[in-house]
Amino acid sequence: MRIFIAGIDGYLGWTLALYLANRGHDVGGADLGLRRQWVEEMGSHSAIPIAGMEKRLNAFKVKFGKRLKFYKGDLTDYVFLSESLHDFKPDAIVHLGEMPSAPYSMIDVHHATWTHTNNLNGTLNMLFAMRDHFPDCHLLKLGTMGEFGTPNVVIPEGDFEVEYRGRKDKLPFPRQPGSYYHCTKVHDSVNVRSACKWWGLRSTDVMQGVVYGTRINEMFWDSAVSEDLVADDAGIVADLRTRFDFDATFGTAINRFCAQAVIGVPITPYGKGHQRRGFLPLQDSMQCLTLALENPPEKGEYRVFNQFEEVYDVTQLAEAVVFAAKKRGIEAKVRNMCNPRMEAEKHYYNPDHQRLLDLGYKPTGDMHGELTGMVDDLYMHRSRIEAKSETLVPDVRWDGSREKMDYVK
Amino acid sequence: MRIFIAGIDGYLGWTLALYLANRGHDVGGADLGLRRQWVEEMGSHSAIPIAGMEKRLNAFKVKFGKRLKFYKGDLTDYVFLSESLHDFKPDAIVHLGEMPSAPYSMIDVHHATWTHTNNLNGTLNMLFAMRDHFPDCHLLKLGTMGEFGTPNVVIPEGDFEVEYRGRKDKLPFPRQPGSYYHCTKVHDSVNVRSACKWWGLRSTDVMQGVVYGTRINEMFWDSAVSEDLVADDAGIVADLRTRFDFDATFGTAINRFCAQAVIGVPITPYGKGHQRRGFLPLQDSMQCLTLALENPPEKGEYRVFNQFEEVYDVTQLAEAVVFAAKKRGIEAKVRNMCNPRMEAEKHYYNPDHQRLLDLGYKPTGDMHGELTGMVDDLYMHRSRIEAKSETLVPDVRWDGSREKMDYVK
Repeated sequence: MRIFIAGIDGYLGWTLALYLANRGHDVGGADLGLRRQWVEEMGSHSAIPIAGMEKRLNAFKVKFGKRLKFYKGDLTDYVFLSESLHDFKPDAIVHLGEMPSAPYSMIDVHHATWTHTNNLNGTLNMLFAMRDHFPDCHLLKLGTMGEFGTPNVVIPEGDFEVEYRGRKDKLPFPRQPGSYYHCTKVHDSVNVRSACKWWGLRSTDVMQGVVYGTRINEMFWDSAVSEDLVADDAGIVADLRTRFDFDATFGTAINRFCAQAVIGVPITPYGKGHQRRGFLPLQDSMQCLTLALENPPEKGEYRVFNQFEEVYDVTQLAEAVVFAAKKRGIEAKVRNMCNPRMEAEKHYYNPDHQRLLDLGYKPTGDMHGELTGMVDDLYMHRSRIEAKSETLVPDVRWDGSREKMDYVK
Repeated sequence: MRIFIAGIDGYLGWTLALYLANRGHDVGGADLGLRRQWVEEMGSHSAIPIAGMEKRLNAFKVKFGKRLKFYKGDLTDYVFLSESLHDFKPDAIVHLGEMPSAPYSMIDVHHATWTHTNNLNGTLNMLFAMRDHFPDCHLLKLGTMGEFGTPNVVIPEGDFEVEYRGRKDKLPFPRQPGSYYHCTKVHDSVNVRSACKWWGLRSTDVMQGVVYGTRINEMFWDSAVSEDLVADDAGIVADLRTRFDFDATFGTAINRFCAQAVIGVPITPYGKGHQRRGFLPLQDSMQCLTLALENPPEKGEYRVFNQFEEVYDVTQLAEAVVFAAKKRGIEAKVRNMCNPRMEAEKHYYNPDHQRLLDLGYKPTGDMHGELTGMVDDLYMHRSRIEAKSETLVPDVRWDGSREKMDYVK
C-alpha cells in the first residue's frame, strides 16, 4: 500500500514510517519541521537526540532497502500539498501534521488563532485534494480522546443512539474540549465527517489516548543490514530514533514524570491527581494505526475508533514511574503541583474501545516494560533534561497569566 | 448601554444600529466592508441601493441626534479589534461580523479555508480581548439554526438532558452542519462556550432562523428631524436603508423568491421544496436581539436562544411570495430547480423556541405584511435585479463543479 504521512518528522509520524516500511508498505510524507521549532520556542529540546531529516532518510534507506519520499512544506499551502500528493499517489493518508499541545494553544490569542488556522486549514486542504483528485484514498486522521472531555455517561465509538423526549435518532456524540488545541480537534472531526457525508470520502477518525514509549522493534540495529549505521547504548540506530519531549508544553504527564525521575526532582501530578485518561504504549499505537490502514472503511464511511489500552488516573501513572525508576536504582518522589489547566478533579470516565480489538488489536499489556525502556533511554540522556529542567515546571495558565506553578500546599 | 456591533455595515448590523439608537443606547461598531466585496465577487449587488458608510453615519446623526462611532478594520486583526474596543468601552458586543453564505464557503478550497480563518479568528480575537480587558462585557454572538441540521428529535435550546446506557448527563446538543460555512458556526459555538466555562465570560449564542424583510420603523423619514435627509418612494430615508441580496450565493431562498417575482421569472424552490426551516421578520430579529442585550446572562453563563417565529417549508414560502406579488398585480409562477446543495428532502423539524418568548418577545405574526413591503421595495428597484438576473440561478454545487443548475424535469 502507498501511504503518505503528513507530519512525518514528529514523534508518531517518524515511528509509523519505520513500522509501515517494515511491513512492506511504500511510505512517503510531508513535514515543515514545525515541531522542532515549537519546542525550541518553549526553550526546550527532545530529550533523546534526533537526526535531521537528511540523516533520517539515509538511515531509513539502509535499514529498509528502499527510499522514503519526503516533501518539505506547509500543509496549509494547498498547492504544496496537492503537488506532493499528485507526485506520491497515495492509497492512504495518515494525518499527524497538526499542532498537538493544549498549553501551546493557550499561551495567548496569537497562539490560539494560529493553532486554529494551522490545524483546520491543513485538514481542509487534504479533504478538498481528496475530493478533487484522490476520491478513493483513505484518510486516517488523528483526533484525541480529549475531544470528549469527561461526560458522566459512557463515551461511545462514533455516533450514539439517543432517545430524547419520545423520539429516537443516531447522532454525533457531544464534545467538551478542554483547551483551544482540543477545540481544533473537535472542529476537524466535524469537518472530516461532513466531507465523508457530502463527497463520499472514506475516513477513520482516531480518538487517540496518550501514547508513551521511546522504542519499537524497527528502530534496532540489525547486523544483516545496519552495517553502515551507528547504534546507541540501547542498541538502537541513533538516526532512526524518534523525539521525546518533556517540557511542560509539549511533554505529556507521563513523559514529564519519567524525565523528573531520572534527574532526581519530584514527580508532579497536577492538582489532586485523580484525572483519569486512556493510555497506550508506542508499539500499540503503531499496531492500531496499521490495523486501521490495512482494513480501510467503505467509500462514504466516516468511522471513529477510540484508541487506548487502559484507563489510569494520574496518580497511578506517577506510581508506575516510581516503580520503573526503582528498578534502575532511582528513588523517585511524588509531589503534587497546582494545576495550570481547568479540568475536573474527580469524574466518571468510561469510553468504549472495542472496534480495534475487533479488527485484531492485541494489547501488549506491558506498561512496566515500556516504562523501563523509557527510563533507560532518558537516563542515558539525563544531561539533556538537566540542561532544560526549568521547562518541566508549567507556566502557561488557562487564565492567561504566565507564571511558574507552585507545589500544592 | 454602550453596544459595539461587529459587522455594522451588514444587513442585520446596520438595521440593529438604528433600532438600538432609537431605544436610547450608545452604538458603535466595526466593519471592513467585506460583504459589499463578496457580493461584487459573485457578480451581483444589493437590490436596494445602500449608501456608503460616510453617508450612513451622517444620516444616523441627523436622525438620532448622536454620533455612531465607526471603526473601519478587520476583526481578524487583534490589534485593530482590541484598540477599537478600548476606545469604545462596550457593555455588550454584538458579533455579526462573519461570512454568512453556505455556497460562498463551498466554492473551492480557498473559499472554505478563508471562511474558517475569517470567522473563527475574528471570534477568538473577541473572546481573548474580553478575557483580558472586558471580562464583564456580554457577547451576543450570531449563530444559525443551520448548525443543528435536521435531527429526528426535538432540538432543545442549549444543552439537553440525556440518558445513555443507564447514566445521565446534561450535554451540548449534537450539531450536523450542512456546509463549511455552517461548520464555522458550529466551531464558534464550541469556542464561545469554552471561553465562558474557562474564563467566566458571559455570552448569548443566538441560533437564528432565516431573517426576511427590508424595513423597520426606525428607517422612515420623520418631519421632526429628517429635514436634511432624502426619502425614497416608500418614505424611507435612502441613506438609512439596509442591503438586500438576491443572488444565489448571498440571497436567502425567500429573498430570491421575491426578486424572481418582481422581474417576472419563475420562483425556484430547490428540489421538491419540502425542506423545513425557521423564519422571522427583520423587525422581530431586532426585537429579539435587543431583548437578549437588555437581559444579559450572568457572568460565566453560556446561554443559547433559538430565534425564529415560525417553521415553514420552502413550498409554503414560495406560495406566500406568490400571494404577496398578486396584491401588486404580479402573476408569479413556481418552478422547482435541482438542488445544488446536499440536504435532506423530507425530514422532521421541531426546535424549541421558548426562551425569547419568556423574556417578552412578541412575534409580529405578519408574514404577509412583511412580504408586501419586500415586494414593494424590490419592485421599485426591479431594474437593478434585472441587470444581475443571471446571479439568481445557482452555480455553486456541493460536489465542486460550477455549472448553472437546471429546472427539475
